Order: sequence, then structure tokens, then C-alpha cells
Amino acid sequence: MSRFLIGRYRDIEEYTPGEQPQNMDQFIKLNTNESPYPPSPGVIRALNSEEAAKLRLYCDPDCGELTKKLAALYGVEPKNVFFSNGSDDILNFIFMIFCGEETPAAFPAISYGFYKVYAQLHRVDAVKIPLKEDFSIDYKDYCGLGRTIIIANPNAPTGQTLSLPEIEEILKTNPENVVVIDEAYVDFGADSAVPLTKKYDNLLVVQTFSKSRSMAGARLGFAIGNESLIADLTKIKYSTNPYNINRLTQAAACAAIDEDDYYKENGRKIQDCRNYTVEKLETMGFDIIPSKANFIFIKNEQIDGEKLYVLLKERKILIRHFTDPQIAQYNRVTIGTKEQMDAFLKAVEEILREERK
Amino acid sequence: MSRFLIGRYRDIEEYTPGEQPQNMDQFIKLNTNESPYPPSPGVIRALNSEEAAKLRLYCDPDCGELTKKLAALYGVEPKNVFFSNGSDDILNFIFMIFCGEETPAAFPAISYGFYKVYAQLHRVDAVKIPLKEDFSIDYKDYCGLGRTIIIANPNAPTGQTLSLPEIEEILKTNPENVVVIDEAYVDFGADSAVPLTKKYDNLLVVQTFSKSRSMAGARLGFAIGNESLIADLTKIKYSTNPYNINRLTQAAACAAIDEDDYYKENGRKIQDCRNYTVEKLETMGFDIIPSKANFIFIKNEQIDGEKLYVLLKERKILIRHFTDPQIAQYNRVTIGTKEQMDAFLKAVEEILREERK
Repeated sequence: MSRFLIGRYRDIEEYTPGEQPQNMDQFIKLNTNESPYPPSPGVIRALNSEEAAKLRLYCDPDCGELTKKLAALYGVEPKNVFFSNGSDDILNFIFMIFCGEETPAAFPAISYGFYKVYAQLHRVDAVKIPLKEDFSIDYKDYCGLGRTIIIANPNAPTGQTLSLPEIEEILKTNPENVVVIDEAYVDFGADSAVPLTKKYDNLLVVQTFSKSRSMAGARLGFAIGNESLIADLTKIKYSTNPYNINRLTQAAACAAIDEDDYYKENGRKIQDCRNYTVEKLETMGFDIIPSKANFIFIKNEQIDGEKLYVLLKERKILIRHFTDPQIAQYNRVTIGTKEQMDAFLKAVEEILREERK
Repeated sequence: MSRFLIGRYRDIEEYTPGEQPQNMDQFIKLNTNESPYPPSPGVIRALNSEEAAKLRLYCDPDCGELTKKLAALYGVEPKNVFFSNGSDDILNFIFMIFCGEETPAAFPAISYGFYKVYAQLHRVDAVKIPLKEDFSIDYKDYCGLGRTIIIANPNAPTGQTLSLPEIEEILKTNPENVVVIDEAYVDFGADSAVPLTKKYDNLLVVQTFSKSRSMAGARLGFAIGNESLIADLTKIKYSTNPYNINRLTQAAACAAIDEDDYYKENGRKIQDCRNYTVEKLETMGFDIIPSKANFIFIKNEQIDGEKLYVLLKERKILIRHFTDPQIAQYNRVTIGTKEQMDAFLKAVEEILREERK
């Protein structure tokens, strides 16, 4: 820290991303919820030498073509769509401009770890609402709160979901507050709240190309919501970093939208593999939170959570362990291909056998 | 604007980027200081289908390889380098974390238009210091100011420079304040302040891959400075958007650094073409501010500044016009290839001839 950093930022505790080993070929990487499948063939084709040569020119700050395509895919208008350099970028804006001294926030106590960083960064008074015993969110806790509400649905790292009627109840009872539904993992079996954006002007749905669309490395997030909320986000983008989505990401995402079926099929494969993995783990005595995401949250009373994480890492399998005491006995495991999950299951089985000795 | 946008952001006047027509093939584009040359062959090769397939994985949030390469190129350590999604991203952070209620800012009244947007966004008390009559910066205006100082060198849109001894004087007399030298255009004949970062812990030099390195569309900016200033920027990155540089941009930039000679040669060609263009324009009666950038700032008493811009646009040549009354008679013209500048010069000649009728 320098002596020049102004006071309000000196005590921020930054976010710790999951490990990204750069020698990843040596690992089975089940720790940051990436897709095990490459982007679709059209994406690979779109990133060609002609596109590379155009890098000398600025990208379209309005993401015009991409916006039109995504709006059509989701059945909304271009004015209802906002793109950002990963969905974290949008979440940061949300805590910055829709929260404040007179507009406090609320989110689940166990959820995406970045929410509390954003709240601290922007000095937002935020209540962290405990989950129920079974790690589900009680939607009634959020009704009539009078706070900006941020809920990941499915929630991370649990994979639990709220139903659309429950979300609608939260929207109806907080008409003077923005309700953000962070749908990073929605494409693995949950219901999207996007259709509700037509009915509720206080709803902002946030999604990403990082998970179901196999583009974590391209950095693209988007928000869908009422025109005026989108206009607010756009105003802040044009006041911070207008050219925030590079040319290649725009080209890749356009191609991905054209091949939506490929990603839908991958989503189905991952759901099948999730069911398969859950079944196998249950026979090994694991407790597993019912998940509609591309990860599962698991614990086993035969072995300490951190120990399982460490022993798997020794076997070159990365899963995600969190140190928060309430969830320290659990681990979050990304669903990969069947081959990857078989290797994971085999390693877990061996580790448990060793433990029993 | 929505009713949810909190008060402090309601009156922000966002930045207006230069026009980016998407049917750009029809235009000679001399309005946003892009390079007329494509990225180097290695960059084109680096963006291949293998790299595209890896997009499913997150990028390295630390930009490890890129940081090492850039540090080596500039003769500094990796801990002295910070990357961002375009240099605007860094400038935003600077106004956010090195300015504040007790740390006001100062920058030239005529300079990169985004500085005043950032100052307003982050509620920074900022003095805009007038240029001298000849549009140069008087370094003495910045000595002993006790404010965070941001100076573009070369300055935009004038192309004028401060010398390193002048910058050093500003650094010495403001030891308790960060001095930012924005060197977006330094590679076209100006002296970089990077060597001074070893001597002054209050100096932050900001550069970009957008201009001399032909990568405006890839979005990559960087800062070089004392380790503790870099640590501050890194802390804020990890509190807002850790994965801010996508995979393809990291790969492209690594390849570009390996082919630095190509970009140096392009820089020389652009300087030659700048001298050529200036000479021709002077014979047509233009006043031209002496420029060390890849653009020139020109006016001609025979024709109104805005009118020249409009008439050139009708001829499918885009230059940049600013509405600020002090510079409304001027236009900023990016230096392209000799062929592009010949087309521009021919069009200007015709327009002036028409005017005289």
C-alpha cells in the first residue's frame, strides 16, 4: 500500500479468485465452474486472421450487433440489454449506483463472495441474511425489505434456487428498490427471471458467457432489464470505460449466439453428468445440496472438508474450498466431462479408503 | 435515467467517444488516433484456433507472462507493472483512489476529455489549469501544487510535450502527491518518463497498446510506477474486476512485445508522414501546433473548424472536431498512411478552393 492511497480504500479486503494454475494441463480443474467443452465451431472460426488484423481499430462501444443478437435470443429489445467485461463489472456498477447511504443493500450471508467486497468498496450498508438450515434462501426474508437486493439464482456455492413466483413476490414487495437476480448458473436447469423484466421495472437480471457458453476467458457479462435501468448502467459505462468489450469478444459472442443449440446441448450433458456424480457420491456417504448449477456442494463426515481439498490437489484435481466456518466442511465441485468426474470419483474413493485405515 | 439511480450520479456528464462508424470500410478514419498498420504477424498468428478453444478457461488474473515480458521490455520489475482493460480503466482508478476530499486534483484545461468526467464521477475537486497562448503547458503551474496531477504527455488534442526535466521539477515539488503522466502518444517522438519511476515514488506513467501498437480493438492499457502505487491499483482491481484482461488480449500483447521492432518502425513511418502532412498543410495556410503525437491539431482562417470537419465527413473522411469554444476553430487529424494523408490533403485542397469561390 502506498502513502497516497486515500483513506476510504485502505481497509478494503479484496476478493480472492479461485486458483488459476497456469500449468493447467496437469490438472483436472473443477474449481471455478468453467465449462469442460470448448466454444462452438463458429466461435473458433470467427477468431481468424482477418478479425485479428482489425484489432488496430477501436471496438464498437455500443456493441451494436451483439446487442441486437442477444436481444433477439432472449425476446427483449436492444434497449433492455447491457454488456460488460464479465458480469463482475455489472455487479460492481450495481453496488456503486443503485446502493448508497439512503439505499442499503441485502444479500444472502452465504453467496458469491464478491458481493460483500463490493458493499465494502462502495461503503454500502449491507445486511447479509442467513440461509435456512438446509442452505436454501427463504424468499420471505427479502419481502418488503426496502433495500437493494442481490440474489444469485442458482445461489453459489450451494446451487439452490428460488422459484419464479418467489422472486416475483420479492419484486412486488420492494417496488422502490432494484432487485438483482444474478443468473450466472441459470442455464443448468433453473428458471430464468428474464421474462419478469417486462413486468417489473425494478428487476435487473445478470448473466454471463463464462459458464454455459464456454467463454470464461473472453470476459463477457450482460444485464437484462427495464430500459431506464439499462440507461443508468450505460451512463456509468460511458463515464468510466466506454470501449469495455474488445473486438474479439464481441465477434466470438455473436458467433456463439448463432450456435445456441450447441450450448443448450452441452448444458444438458452437464446436467446428466451432475446427476451421475451425485448418485455416485451419495453411495460414498456424501451429503449433497440439491443443485441446479454446473457445480455441487458436498461434504462427508468421514473427512474434513479442507483435507479432502488438499488430498485431491495432491492428486492434481482442483476443487474449491472456502474457509468461512459455516461451510468449511463443504467443497464446491464443478461438473466436468464424464471422464473428468470418473477420475474425481476414483480419487475420492481412494482418499476415503485411506482415511478409514 | 431510472428512479433508482442514486443522487450523486444523476448529473454526471458522460464522455463522448469519437465516432466509430461500423461501416468503416467506406471511410478514411482519421478521428480516433488509431494506427493505420495492422498488428504484427506474430499477433495474427497468436490468435489461432488453439487459443480460441482455450476460451472456456478463465484468463490469468495476474497477467503473469505478459507482466514479465513488458517489465523486461521497459527495464523495470514485474512488481512495477499494472495492466488494465484499456488505459481509461487505470485513469478511472487514479481519480477514484489517489484523489479525494483531502486530495484534490489538477490537470490542463485543454486535454483528454475524460479527466473531467472522472473528476466529476468521483467528486474530486479538480482545477483545470489553462494552457499558454501557444497551447503549451507551463510546467511551473504544476510545481508545488499539493494536488494529484494528471498530465497527458504529449498532450491531447494538441500534441505538445513537456520535457523530462520539467516533469522532474513537478515530481520534486509535489512529493506528497501522485503525479500521473499519461503517455498514450509517447511512442511517436516524445521522451517517456518511465526511467523516472525508479527515482520518484509519486510517479505513475500510463500507456496503452491502442495507438503505437495497433491494438485499439484489443483493449490493453498499463501503468508503470513504484511498487506500492502498483499494489494500490492491484488491490482495487481485485476489489472490482480481477479477470479484467481477457485471454486473447493477453496472448496478442505477448506476441506484440516479442515483435517490438515492427511497432518502432511503424512509429517512425508515422512521424515521417506527420512531417510530410504538416508541410503540405502549411503551404495551404494552416496553423499547426507542433506535435510529437500521431495526430496534428490544425486550423485555417479561411474556413470554420466545424465546417471543415463536416465537409470532410461528406467526402467520407473522418477527423475529430471538439465543441469547446477555445478550440472550436481547430480539428484533430490522426496521421494515417501516406495514401490516406494524400487523400485527406486533396480533399482539404478542394474544400478550400470551393470556399474561396
